Amino acid sequence: MAVKPVVRIGLLGLGTVGTGVAKVLMRSKEKLERNVGAKLELARVADKDLARPRDIQLPAEILTDDALKVVHDPSIDLVVELIGGIMPAKLYIMEAIKARKHVVTANKALLAECWDEIVKAARENGVEVYFEAAVGGGIPIIQSISEGLAANRIEAVYMIINGTSNYILTRMDRDGKSFSEALKEAQKKGYAEADPALDIGGGDAAHKLAILSSLAFETTVSLKSIFVEGIQDLTPQDFAYAREEFGYVVKLLAIAKLVGEEGKGEQLEVRVHPTLIPESHLLASVEGAYNGIYVVGDAVGSTMFYGLGAGQMPTASAVVSDILYVARSIAYGVAGRAGWGPFGDIPLQTVSLPVRPIEAVVTRYYMRLTCLDKPGVLAQIAEILGRNQISIAGVVQKERRSGDKVPVIILTYEARERDMQKALKEIHGLDAIKGKTLIIRMEKGE
Amino acid sequence: MAVKPVVRIGLLGLGTVGTGVAKVLMRSKEKLERNVGAKLELARVADKDLARPRDIQLPAEILTDDALKVVHDPSIDLVVELIGGIMPAKLYIMEAIKARKHVVTANKALLAECWDEIVKAARENGVEVYFEAAVGGGIPIIQSISEGLAANRIEAVYMIINGTSNYILTRMDRDGKSFSEALKEAQKKGYAEADPALDIGGGDAAHKLAILSSLAFETTVSLKSIFVEGIQDLTPQDFAYAREEFGYVVKLLAIAKLVGEEGKGEQLEVRVHPTLIPESHLLASVEGAYNGIYVVGDAVGSTMFYGLGAGQMPTASAVVSDILYVARSIAYGVAGRAGWGPFGDIPLQTVSLPVRPIEAVVTRYYMRLTCLDKPGVLAQIAEILGRNQISIAGVVQKERRSGDKVPVIILTYEARERDMQKALKEIHGLDAIKGKTLIIRMEKGE
Repeated sequence: MAVKPVVRIGLLGLGTVGTGVAKVLMRSKEKLERNVGAKLELARVADKDLARPRDIQLPAEILTDDALKVVHDPSIDLVVELIGGIMPAKLYIMEAIKARKHVVTANKALLAECWDEIVKAARENGVEVYFEAAVGGGIPIIQSISEGLAANRIEAVYMIINGTSNYILTRMDRDGKSFSEALKEAQKKGYAEADPALDIGGGDAAHKLAILSSLAFETTVSLKSIFVEGIQDLTPQDFAYAREEFGYVVKLLAIAKLVGEEGKGEQLEVRVHPTLIPESHLLASVEGAYNGIYVVGDAVGSTMFYGLGAGQMPTASAVVSDILYVARSIAYGVAGRAGWGPFGDIPLQTVSLPVRPIEAVVTRYYMRLTCLDKPGVLAQIAEILGRNQISIAGVVQKERRSGDKVPVIILTYEARERDMQKALKEIHGLDAIKGKTLIIRMEKGE
Repeated sequence: MAVKPVVRIGLLGLGTVGTGVAKVLMRSKEKLERNVGAKLELARVADKDLARPRDIQLPAEILTDDALKVVHDPSIDLVVELIGGIMPAKLYIMEAIKARKHVVTANKALLAECWDEIVKAARENGVEVYFEAAVGGGIPIIQSISEGLAANRIEAVYMIINGTSNYILTRMDRDGKSFSEALKEAQKKGYAEADPALDIGGGDAAHKLAILSSLAFETTVSLKSIFVEGIQDLTPQDFAYAREEFGYVVKLLAIAKLVGEEGKGEQLEVRVHPTLIPESHLLASVEGAYNGIYVVGDAVGSTMFYGLGAGQMPTASAVVSDILYVARSIAYGVAGRAGWGPFGDIPLQTVSLPVRPIEAVVTRYYMRLTCLDKPGVLAQIAEILGRNQISIAGVVQKERRSGDKVPVIILTYEARERDMQKALKEIHGLDAIKGKTLIIRMEKGE
C-alpha cells in the first residue's frame, strides 16, 4: 500500500551519534521496517574523515567524504545531519531542504540560532524537519509537546536539560565536592567536554530552551532573549544550607512560563539559572547525568519526562524515532504536507510573544552574604532589603568557627529582580560585607 | 492540501470525560485545527441520558440517545467511545470498525479483554484504533512506546498506574494511616469508586499492563496470564519498617519484563503486586494520585513518564491528542494504511511471547511474620528458609511492647517464588507463628 516501498537515507556525520544511528538501523532492521511499512536503506554516508576507526562496518561504496554528494543525490529521500555546529551543517541542511529532501537533525545550536530561517525554508519547500534528539536526548519530548500534549495550552516548562551540569550539582549536593572537583570528575567520566563552558555556563540549556519553548508556546524565542546564569559560583555549602536548613535542592533549571493574563498583556519568561526547588518536587529527584522535563498544561496538569539527555545510544534512539516517523510519511506520500511534522502547526507568520525582561521577573531568593562578624550587620542588611520591598522569610547565621567572616543565608519572599539588584548594590556598599553576594532564585514548581 | 477539509467526529458518552473532550474541542478549536490542517466538527453526540445536568452547552440537533445512529451515520469519519465497560461499548466499537470508521477510545477494560479481536477487526477493515487515554491518563505513553521509543527493543516496564491505590499508599506511608482510613479518605476526595475493588485489588493496573505490554513487546498479553495481588493486606508498620530500617518504599507496581536470553527461551514476566523499591528510585518519588511509567529500552536506557492518570481534563487531553492524530491522517487520506496508528506495526499473526509462571519468578522478598516472643523461634524460621534455598539479607525484631506477639521482619536475597511458597507453608506450621505472614516482593528497578 505504500506509494514508496523503499526509503533511502543519507547520513551526514559518522561520529559517536552517527555510528549509534547506523548500529540501530542495522541491528533492528526488521522491527523498524515493520513500524514504517516500507524498507529502510542506509544509502549514503558522509564523513570528513573516513579513516577514523569505528566499531561498525559499512560497505565502502556507500561512504564518501563529500557531504554535498549525499545532499544532492536525487535518489536520497531523507538527510540525517549529525555533524553539529553551525557551519557547514547549516549549508548542508539548507541545500537538502532546497533539494526537497526531508531532514532529521540533532543540531540544537543550529536550530536555536536559525529557527525562523529553517522553519521558513522547510515550509516553502514542502519538506519536514525533525529534531527529537536536539532536546533531552532519548526522551521523546518534542513529539510529546507537538502531539501528545497538543490538546493543551502549555503554561510552563521547567527543565533539567544539561546532564553534565546536573551531574556536577549532584556530586556537590550528595558528596560535598567543590565545583572544580565535581567538574574534573565529570570530565574524567566523559560527561564534560574539554571546554565545558557551554554546559556549566548554561548556554547549552539555553539552546534547548529556545527550541522547546518556541514549539510549546508557538512563538519564536531568540537565544538573546533568554536570561542565562551558570553554576560556577555555587559551593557545597549552598547545597547543605538549602537542603538541611530549608528543605530545598539546587538545580540548574531552564524555565519558560506564561505570565500575565491570557489575551491581555501576556508575556513569556525564559531563563536559565541555578534554582532552589523544594526537595519534594519530582525534579529534585532527577540526579546525575539524567534530564527531567516538567511540563504544565491547562488540561493535563503537571507531567514530567525523564531520561538520559546525551550519549551515543540514547541520542540514536531519538534520531531513529524521527527517521521512522518521516519515513512513514514518505512511504505513504504525505511528507511535507502542512499539518505534519513538529513545524506542522506553527503559523508561518508567527506573532512572537513578548519576553518579560529579567528586571521585571518576580521570584523568591536565596542569598548567601559573607559578613564580618560584628554587631548590627544583620540589622543593616534587613533595613536595605525592607526599603527595597523585599521581605525576609528565613535567616541562618551559624556561630563563627575561624577567621573573622561568617556566611549569612537569607531566604526572601517574592521580590522583583530590579529591587533585588538595587538592594545588592546597596548591601555591597556596607563596610561589613566582604566578597560577592550569591543569589539563587527559587521556584516552587507546580 | 488536505483531501478532506472537514473531519466529522461522533462522540459516544457524554459523562465526565466526554464532557471534558467536548470542552477542549470547543475552547481550543483554532489551535487544534491548525495542528490537524483541517476543520474539526463535533458532528454528533450520543448519551443514554440527555437530561443529565452538564456544565457544557451543545446544540440540541447534534444530540441523540441512540449511539448506533452516530456509529451508522455515513458522514461521521471518526467515532470517539467514552462509555466504558465491555457492553454495549464493544458493540458500538465493532460496528464503527465494520462501517470503516476510525476509533478513539479510553476503554482499558475492553482493550485488555478483547485485544486480539479489536486488532484483527481494525486491520481487516483498514481503520485505526487509538487509545492514549486507556493507560496513564494524560501521559502520552502509548505514542511514546509506539513511536518515540520505536527504535528500541523494550526490556522492561515498571508502572505506578493506578492513582487511587497510589494515593492510599502515600497516605499510609507519609501519615501513618491505616489502609481503611486511607481508603475512606480517597473515597471522600473522589479518587476511589464506591466499589474500589478494581483499584485496590490490582485489576485496573492489570488491564493497563495487558495493553501496554502487548504494545511494548509486540505480543498479546492476556489478562489471565498476569499475576495480580492487591494492597489490602499492607499496614502502616510495613511502610515504616521498609523506609526506616531498610531504605525502601512500598508501591503497587505493574511490571513487565523480558527474562531469559534473546532468541532462546525468552519469557515475559507480567505481574501486579505491592513492591519494595529503593527510596532513591525515581518511582519512589511518584506520590499521591500521580502515575509513573518507567520504561527501559536497549538504546535509550531508563526513561520515566509522569502525570495524572485519571480525572476529567487529563483524560480529555489524551483523548483529544488521539483525535488530532487520526484526524490528520483522515484529512490527508492516509488513515488506515498499514504502518499507521499504534496497531500499525503489530504483525497480524502475532507469535505470543511465553509468560513465565509466577512460581518460576525470582525476586527478593520482604517478609513480616507475627511470632510468639519465645526462645528459638527465629532459629526455626531461619532453618526452614535455608532448607528452601532462601538466604536472609536482613532481620529486624523490636523489643515487645505489649501482648505476647512480636513482628519479625526478614529481607531475603533472591529466591524463587515456588521455594518461598513452600517455606511459608512450613513456617505456618510452627506453633510460635500466629496469623498470616505477609510477603512483599522487591525490585531494584534499573
